[in-house]
Amino acid sequence: MMRARIQPAVVGATGYAGFELTRLLLSHPHVNTPVLLSRDQRTDASLADVYPKIACEGRGDLPFEPISWESLRAKGVDVLFCATPHEFSREWIPEAVDRGFRVVDLSGAWRLKNAAHRAVYGFSDADWRCAALDDSAVYGIPELHASAIRNAQLVANAGCYATSVIVALAPWVRGGLIDIEHGIICDSKSGVSGAGKQPTPKTHFVEVADNLSAYSVFGHRHTGEIVEQLGIVSSSLQFTPHLLPIPRGILSTIYVRVKDGVTANELNASLKAFYSGQPFVRVFSNGRLPQIKFSLNTNYCDIGFAVAPEGRRAVVVSCLDNLIKGASGQALQNMNVMFGFDQREGLQ
Amino acid sequence: MMRARIQPAVVGATGYAGFELTRLLLSHPHVNTPVLLSRDQRTDASLADVYPKIACEGRGDLPFEPISWESLRAKGVDVLFCATPHEFSREWIPEAVDRGFRVVDLSGAWRLKNAAHRAVYGFSDADWRCAALDDSAVYGIPELHASAIRNAQLVANAGCYATSVIVALAPWVRGGLIDIEHGIICDSKSGVSGAGKQPTPKTHFVEVADNLSAYSVFGHRHTGEIVEQLGIVSSSLQFTPHLLPIPRGILSTIYVRVKDGVTANELNASLKAFYSGQPFVRVFSNGRLPQIKFSLNTNYCDIGFAVAPEGRRAVVVSCLDNLIKGASGQALQNMNVMFGFDQREGLQ
Amino acid sequence: MMRARIQPAVVGATGYAGFELTRLLLSHPHVNTPVLLSRDQRTDASLADVYPKIACEGRGDLPFEPISWESLRAKGVDVLFCATPHEFSREWIPEAVDRGFRVVDLSGAWRLKNAAHRAVYGFSDADWRCAALDDSAVYGIPELHASAIRNAQLVANAGCYATSVIVALAPWVRGGLIDIEHGIICDSKSGVSGAGKQPTPKTHFVEVADNLSAYSVFGHRHTGEIVEQLGIVSSSLQFTPHLLPIPRGILSTIYVRVKDGVTANELNASLKAFYSGQPFVRVFSNGRLPQIKFSLNTNYCDIGFAVAPEGRRAVVVSCLDNLIKGASGQALQNMNVMFGFDQREGLQ
Amino acid sequence: MMRARIQPAVVGATGYAGFELTRLLLSHPHVNTPVLLSRDQRTDASLADVYPKIACEGRGDLPFEPISWESLRAKGVDVLFCATPHEFSREWIPEAVDRGFRVVDLSGAWRLKNAAHRAVYGFSDADWRCAALDDSAVYGIPELHASAIRNAQLVANAGCYATSVIVALAPWVRGGLIDIEHGIICDSKSGVSGAGKQPTPKTHFVEVADNLSAYSVFGHRHTGEIVEQLGIVSSSLQFTPHLLPIPRGILSTIYVRVKDGVTANELNASLKAFYSGQPFVRVFSNGRLPQIKFSLNTNYCDIGFAVAPEGRRAVVVSCLDNLIKGASGQALQNMNVMFGFDQREGLQ
Repeated sequence: MMRARIQPAVVGATGYAGFELTRLLLSHPHVNTPVLLSRDQRTDASLADVYPKIACEGRGDLPFEPISWESLRAKGVDVLFCATPHEFSREWIPEAVDRGFRVVDLSGAWRLKNAAHRAVYGFSDADWRCAALDDSAVYGIPELHASAIRNAQLVANAGCYATSVIVALAPWVRGGLIDIEHGIICDSKSGVSGAGKQPTPKTHFVEVADNLSAYSVFGHRHTGEIVEQLGIVSSSLQFTPHLLPIPRGILSTIYVRVKDGVTANELNASLKAFYSGQPFVRVFSNGRLPQIKFSLNTNYCDIGFAVAPEGRRAVVVSCLDNLIKGASGQALQNMNVMFGFDQREGLQ
Repeated sequence: MMRARIQPAVVGATGYAGFELTRLLLSHPHVNTPVLLSRDQRTDASLADVYPKIACEGRGDLPFEPISWESLRAKGVDVLFCATPHEFSREWIPEAVDRGFRVVDLSGAWRLKNAAHRAVYGFSDADWRCAALDDSAVYGIPELHASAIRNAQLVANAGCYATSVIVALAPWVRGGLIDIEHGIICDSKSGVSGAGKQPTPKTHFVEVADNLSAYSVFGHRHTGEIVEQLGIVSSSLQFTPHLLPIPRGILSTIYVRVKDGVTANELNASLKAFYSGQPFVRVFSNGRLPQIKFSLNTNYCDIGFAVAPEGRRAVVVSCLDNLIKGASGQALQNMNVMFGFDQREGLQ
Repeated sequence: MMRARIQPAVVGATGYAGFELTRLLLSHPHVNTPVLLSRDQRTDASLADVYPKIACEGRGDLPFEPISWESLRAKGVDVLFCATPHEFSREWIPEAVDRGFRVVDLSGAWRLKNAAHRAVYGFSDADWRCAALDDSAVYGIPELHASAIRNAQLVANAGCYATSVIVALAPWVRGGLIDIEHGIICDSKSGVSGAGKQPTPKTHFVEVADNLSAYSVFGHRHTGEIVEQLGIVSSSLQFTPHLLPIPRGILSTIYVRVKDGVTANELNASLKAFYSGQPFVRVFSNGRLPQIKFSLNTNYCDIGFAVAPEGRRAVVVSCLDNLIKGASGQALQNMNVMFGFDQREGLQ
Repeated sequence: MMRARIQPAVVGATGYAGFELTRLLLSHPHVNTPVLLSRDQRTDASLADVYPKIACEGRGDLPFEPISWESLRAKGVDVLFCATPHEFSREWIPEAVDRGFRVVDLSGAWRLKNAAHRAVYGFSDADWRCAALDDSAVYGIPELHASAIRNAQLVANAGCYATSVIVALAPWVRGGLIDIEHGIICDSKSGVSGAGKQPTPKTHFVEVADNLSAYSVFGHRHTGEIVEQLGIVSSSLQFTPHLLPIPRGILSTIYVRVKDGVTANELNASLKAFYSGQPFVRVFSNGRLPQIKFSLNTNYCDIGFAVAPEGRRAVVVSCLDNLIKGASGQALQNMNVMFGFDQREGLQ
């Protein structure tokens, strides 16, 4: 049932994803002004202190409030967004869920069903409620899990890299069109905002500019998400992220082996059918390929592909804005599904 | 036998690679000031007209001269460098060779032995001497072909992308350490200078900045070079170039399947042994990977690799400066070999 | 009188400013789908051929049509936008005006009242109607000339640099707060899109990246606009543009001498009063200064200033997006004024 | 008297300037391998830990050593370079000088003679030797102070912005060619490495990219240096720095009023004469202006200028590499003067 108007709260609005989410929420026609919660319980700060851009807009500034269950209840908060480090999400969300709040978590805390995959995060899991939540949390890509998201109490918003790869591959994997055992290779490149707002040597302008580097080869945390969502074994997937000298955007170049007898037309038809009626996936045809710029500042995930002359090898290129479809936009899209709004509300 | 001092001439010094080459030649201790030849027979221009940076240096400016065989002979030119479009090189070099000049060609005109691979260039080959030259031209990567280069009359300087991939893979392919039939995937990324100095929509700042795009998927001209030099069949190699928003530098991420029983130590030993004594290939060990910045403005090709936990998959990362090791520096290195100089002369 | 819905046509939608304008028009609630006119009378092209980004959006593609007065009439075109070179605008617009069309010209063709200033453009002015149009054309900054724009048949949309300087200085100049005879210095910096979409050596990525350069010192065409609009003599204004390695955005740093006895508070009050009720000028207070990023992708012109300890010198910083407030957004704002819409329609 | 070979030590080699200095020292023909000193007395680190690029070069890695006067003496250290925060330099250098070491300090600790100017640094000056050192320290621009530098015990290497402005203006100020009372305006723009290697919100890639901002308006620390070196009063100089989205390089656009009767030829002759025989200042003629790229990775300071048609206003553009001529290169140049080497040694 569609609600007239809902009340969101955001923890972590000072980060890049949380800030974008806050701005999206402010423009959403069926959403009240979000409550911003401060993890370190500050009461003397506002969004404009962190984003001076806000201060000059004459709108959009919001105070941070300490976290208080009573206050959240009193304000009639319907949904909590956590744009927080996974350690915080892992610790805080069981209590929130227990108290009946619906939650969209943008971290990696609740995305993985397989304990072996979760090991990479090193959760201590002191809270006895974690195991139940690991089971009930719904992976947050609406194009794949809309009906479960609709009724979910906790949605684990998908990772940015993972979204770009899963959206590109799900149709062919589910349709049995590619030879998974041969191995799938995902060579992904991301802008710097994916590394977060915290200044580090890795995000220093001088280190990033005029450069390109691969990192976390054979060990990136999003690998588990991709494997689980595609329903394949880890050794079938090779995922290599790279740091691009641009502020935002992801391009994944994905290499697959096409099954004998499967034609380029069938590959194309599979994508078109799978995403028919989905407003935020754009399938490019006829060998046209997306570029990072095409989807910047939008909630689109763009997909295009090319097939080798001999027909056995295919390359898929997938692009999205890591802060929108890879984080805040997808979170809003999940919220829309959870509360019965049109998926496009607040995202166009 | 080492020559005391040689006289070079350069056709195409106005392009990025030809300009870098000219500057390298000017610093080489055993080389006379190069003669710059104008393809369009201009006599009223100098290098500083094209590169204002030169004008302010009080050195390095050189006049362009019309091309004249008599003049080249009179000046005692020992070696001709062609930093020219492949169409020009294909047409002009047979005559130059016929007249006894030694030539280093930086274009793709003479790199390919296999007529099927050459087809991608669409040469008309009106000149009856082409076939003989296709046979005798030596592919210009000194780390692989030093002895043939020493005696070559025509050296076909290797492509920038091709160098990054061939140098990375040659040791393992020749050593039989990887499963070639499984397929090799080369995901390469290059700075914009690789697209040349000619202003085009593709090289416009506004189109390139904040963007990334794949191009020539399944159809890039360097594919043939890689396949020939590695001695593998085309369908075993997947090469995908991307345009990076940086001025220069290439990073290739290469995915291979390791043969059963081959260990990471053996892979490392293979690289170390193959490039032992080679001054311009740096092998990184222990999973450390090169970045584009490490080799900028140098003639190095850097290689590092990582192996998957299960030991069957490996990722090699290879970096170089496309204008130096990928073009002008390698051309000078080839010249050093041709004339008996130390490979490092003029390159440090 | 406010019209229910108006019909625009655009000449020059293939350039950066014309393209942005077309996209803004497509989102304007009181505007029909714009007619796109092809200067070279092509009929086989559409916007997506020039901007592949369009093709993937499933909306926004529009055909180009040859220019025909009959067709424009038949389609009920109310307003013509010219995002064209000034030579074309100078030649074509007199006819359009003569035929009764209202026109917003984004070029420099009709901005200057003073023939001496116009000389820098080298117009031949064969058309006898030019002199009358030079008189009647209204300079298109709505914050300064709203009432004249309302009734104008031809609006000469202000230059990008000129807007950033004029908006910053008009209040203090008109208010007599600064010593103009002492001289005003405008040190401006612009992103590359200001140089247009045509690929040139100046806009090649490799030339612009990692660089900064001053150009047209003492000779830039926008100098005349600034001087005329501020009502000062040429020798009182020093305007120096620079090319920034960014795609878009302008920052002008403006140095003025404050008149004796004028306080920082008065300077601030002057700006606040002048732009009170103006939706697209944001005045920063208390020494806070705008940055280029704050106004990117918006129609805002941001202004902030600082005063020296001794109170005699002031620095004003002014920022805007050269393609929006510096071109297409201001054109739409002018159109809103001309047709009685709220200035903000289609711009938020 | 020229020394055969000298022994340097560097404190602060982990910063950008200290690192560049170390690399320059390693290539200097008359200098032994520098001793690197660790401010925090670490003994377990080497340069390659901070700059991985070093590790792959097979040369250039150097261990850090704790600071010990005995050890410095035992190693025969002739000159100490401090590429350290000014607080450290202010505290540590009096002792070093007292112990007889010659010092080149790259910080702002000893550049200012006027206590009012030093106030901006907020030194506590507990050390009674400071006052004497403030007197005896020589400002380190060799083009202005070579003879004093030759005999100096402490050279205060000039600031990066300050060098670009002082080198541009000294000839005209000393020659009495410009009207100083009218006011001089220096609008300077710097790459991000000028802000240091420490990761901060200001140097985060996402904040800097696609942006430009002015900062420290009317309050930058280099203002005092410029004023003192030019011998003018503070209110005659307006210095405004901006942060450019590039890794390195400074361009200063400087506005002056030319004295009555002074011609462009005289202005040019003044620069040419002043820098005649100076290897690291390049004077551009005939209205040609330097760009940041021309001097990157060199020790040059480039100067060019243009004069207004009416002859009273002039614009000087000055460029340099902030890490070379603006820091490490100038430090080496100072060392060359101190020890009687050719100024160019190790800098070409």
